[in-house]
Amino acid sequence: MIEIRRLNALDNDFWIQLNTLLAWDSVADEQVMLSVRDIIRTVRQQGDGALVDYTKRFDRREVSDIQELIIPTERLQQALSSLDKNQRRALEQAAERIRDYHLRQKQESWQYTEADGTVLGQQVTALDRAGLYVPGGKAAYPSSVLMNAIPAKVAGVAEIIMVVPAPDGLLNNMVLAAAMLAGVDKVFSIGGAQAVAALAYGTATVPKVDKIVGPGNIYVATAKSMVFGAVGIDMIAGPSEILIICDGETDPDWIAMDLFSQAEHDEQAQSILVSPDAAFLDAVQQSMTQLLSQMPRAEIIKTSIAQRGALIHVESLEQAIEVSNFIAPEHLELSVNEPKTWLGKIRHAGAIFMGRYTAEALGDYCAGANHVLPTSRTARFSSPLGVYDFQKRSSIIYCSEDGANRLGKIASTLAHAEGLTAHARSAEYRIVQNLLES
Amino acid sequence: MIEIRRLNALDNDFWIQLNTLLAWDSVADEQVMLSVRDIIRTVRQQGDGALVDYTKRFDRREVSDIQELIIPTERLQQALSSLDKNQRRALEQAAERIRDYHLRQKQESWQYTEADGTVLGQQVTALDRAGLYVPGGKAAYPSSVLMNAIPAKVAGVAEIIMVVPAPDGLLNNMVLAAAMLAGVDKVFSIGGAQAVAALAYGTATVPKVDKIVGPGNIYVATAKSMVFGAVGIDMIAGPSEILIICDGETDPDWIAMDLFSQAEHDEQAQSILVSPDAAFLDAVQQSMTQLLSQMPRAEIIKTSIAQRGALIHVESLEQAIEVSNFIAPEHLELSVNEPKTWLGKIRHAGAIFMGRYTAEALGDYCAGANHVLPTSRTARFSSPLGVYDFQKRSSIIYCSEDGANRLGKIASTLAHAEGLTAHARSAEYRIVQNLLES
Repeated sequence: MIEIRRLNALDNDFWIQLNTLLAWDSVADEQVMLSVRDIIRTVRQQGDGALVDYTKRFDRREVSDIQELIIPTERLQQALSSLDKNQRRALEQAAERIRDYHLRQKQESWQYTEADGTVLGQQVTALDRAGLYVPGGKAAYPSSVLMNAIPAKVAGVAEIIMVVPAPDGLLNNMVLAAAMLAGVDKVFSIGGAQAVAALAYGTATVPKVDKIVGPGNIYVATAKSMVFGAVGIDMIAGPSEILIICDGETDPDWIAMDLFSQAEHDEQAQSILVSPDAAFLDAVQQSMTQLLSQMPRAEIIKTSIAQRGALIHVESLEQAIEVSNFIAPEHLELSVNEPKTWLGKIRHAGAIFMGRYTAEALGDYCAGANHVLPTSRTARFSSPLGVYDFQKRSSIIYCSEDGANRLGKIASTLAHAEGLTAHARSAEYRIVQNLLES
Repeated sequence: MIEIRRLNALDNDFWIQLNTLLAWDSVADEQVMLSVRDIIRTVRQQGDGALVDYTKRFDRREVSDIQELIIPTERLQQALSSLDKNQRRALEQAAERIRDYHLRQKQESWQYTEADGTVLGQQVTALDRAGLYVPGGKAAYPSSVLMNAIPAKVAGVAEIIMVVPAPDGLLNNMVLAAAMLAGVDKVFSIGGAQAVAALAYGTATVPKVDKIVGPGNIYVATAKSMVFGAVGIDMIAGPSEILIICDGETDPDWIAMDLFSQAEHDEQAQSILVSPDAAFLDAVQQSMTQLLSQMPRAEIIKTSIAQRGALIHVESLEQAIEVSNFIAPEHLELSVNEPKTWLGKIRHAGAIFMGRYTAEALGDYCAGANHVLPTSRTARFSSPLGVYDFQKRSSIIYCSEDGANRLGKIASTLAHAEGLTAHARSAEYRIVQNLLES
């Protein structure tokens, strides 16, 4: 039998056990920090030259000039044209569905006018330029290009700059094709902390962006956290996780495979099944055991399931929801009858997959919602990547003379109370009769 | 004459000069980092006892038990009752206006159903618990309590925990009154990195929150950046700034005082005036020189204006807007005729104060929009604090059998292309005829 932890919500120390199961600390390695800091400093000082040097060294490429690291639009178009018909159609359908969903997230400006003519509101604008990091090599995911670039386009970002390393000169055709479909404006075959530094501070060739999004390894994540402030960044993601709540009526093979689909990402990924049906937990473990050998990534799956997976027996679906709200899972499958009746009770989750037919994998590619989701319990306070991440708001305040009169008195009183005399005087100048009621 | 830098947009090196003027680096002092790391670790390990110890040491207080650090609701009510009539009315009016404005920011859940019955949407929920840091001592600002707590309440946050240090036992009555008005649920008289750690990880007495907001000194800011991930945080603010664009027709005394109202915050604050009218720049400098002596914070103002202030001469209002978009100011005053005609050209700003009567100070207290705004050019990618900072979204995906069939084929194709077999199989199980078109 495949090795997987069992928890029982009736145990006295269940919540402590659960907390231990979830614990995950991103260890900020001192050596990684120092080397990333050094790379960022060098790119800021030496610009394009540093990008060429690092790319030769880290990506094992023969490069003599930054121009060789520009991937022209023709190359993207060529990648798209070279796809087999099925792959191209799947990519196009996914892109269209993602666009449809994200169009509904777009936020609009608003204003209102008060009785005395004072206007208040919020002006919503898009970022000028976004940077998109795409990992190279094996973990090259075209779906990730779509999920990051399309919301930016929908927001109205004028220019999307994509960076994708080409280790040993290798580039993934589907990644380039996805960039073409998503409308990415410029692509550079650079990666690592050096690419993040180039996007954050700009070089003669790589334009400086306003925000950097997209997944990456520990060097990329560390670089993103270090340039935050100079530019915006998306979340720093932890390992991927799924929580499945099942009433025991779904085919155990389906649930086993859903658990595997998280586990195959990497050894740190976390797959948890919660059910009030103990026999069903047994059946799923049995299914996993049988299905494992069919998986090309069996070793990764086995390690992930053994180290971080769990089967949790609860008393009821109500208790299952309670467990879910504690975990605030990145992916939550409600594999139950009438999933809609439970929706209002879900307090925290990145994405909620409702019903037996809604495999989480559908959301990863083409349901339309974003697959960049808050991990490691951060769904308690954060949201899926969305159009709103590429828009920002400016408050609008217009005071009529009457409004300035009225508000000036309030502001003056509070400013004096805070000991800020210039604030008070600045407000008082606009009080027409220049007299404070007191 | 008061000392202030002059720039001219016609100079060849104007944009370089401007860049230098704006440069501001938050130096992350190694000693501060180490000491904050130590405080956080100690609070995590020792809980309430550590809070008592640090409060005795850093706030110079006689405390023997954590219970003494709880500020009961009766104390808040007493503070509110003790205010003089004018102050209480001003605070109540400000709170009401802030609430009115922020009610318009509340985001609602949405769903849509596709032809085959597949449902997609987004569920918006409030954070369970928010932590509000309020500085103690001299820089105790009741307005800041309103601006941070009211959006959380409007969002529907169930519990707001406020921390405010009481150095030498001193608490600001207006701060406590503001907490009462804003509906803060629990208040502790603790501060510094220890208060941030308590909110982030919880102690026996201080509840663990989901997000920490509010301004603080370098220890507080460093602690917030260190606990980020375990909890959400708002932005780490730089010094306050104002950019005023004036056509030269506003009373120079008014503009001078508006510049002072930023400068009086601290020596690092930045006040910049841009005008196509060189004589007006002279007149404002003259006004500043005359008004300075009337300011209780004259020394701070003088230093701030000399070190970080500027008068910028431009050719036209169009060019002034170009300068503003480069700066992406926290506060932007459009002290011009017909300010609405310029609004659409503003790409980046925290808050836009339109017209001669709209002093920035009105926005600080009572216009209704939030006074917590992106500083240091981060308005390029971030927004004022708002209700949306206390809400988060969960994607909703419900596939009908037909939908799972249709989407399963796309997902399967893309998953195989990415080499993720478990993803593909998980999708394929839900394809009813279990046949892939190929």
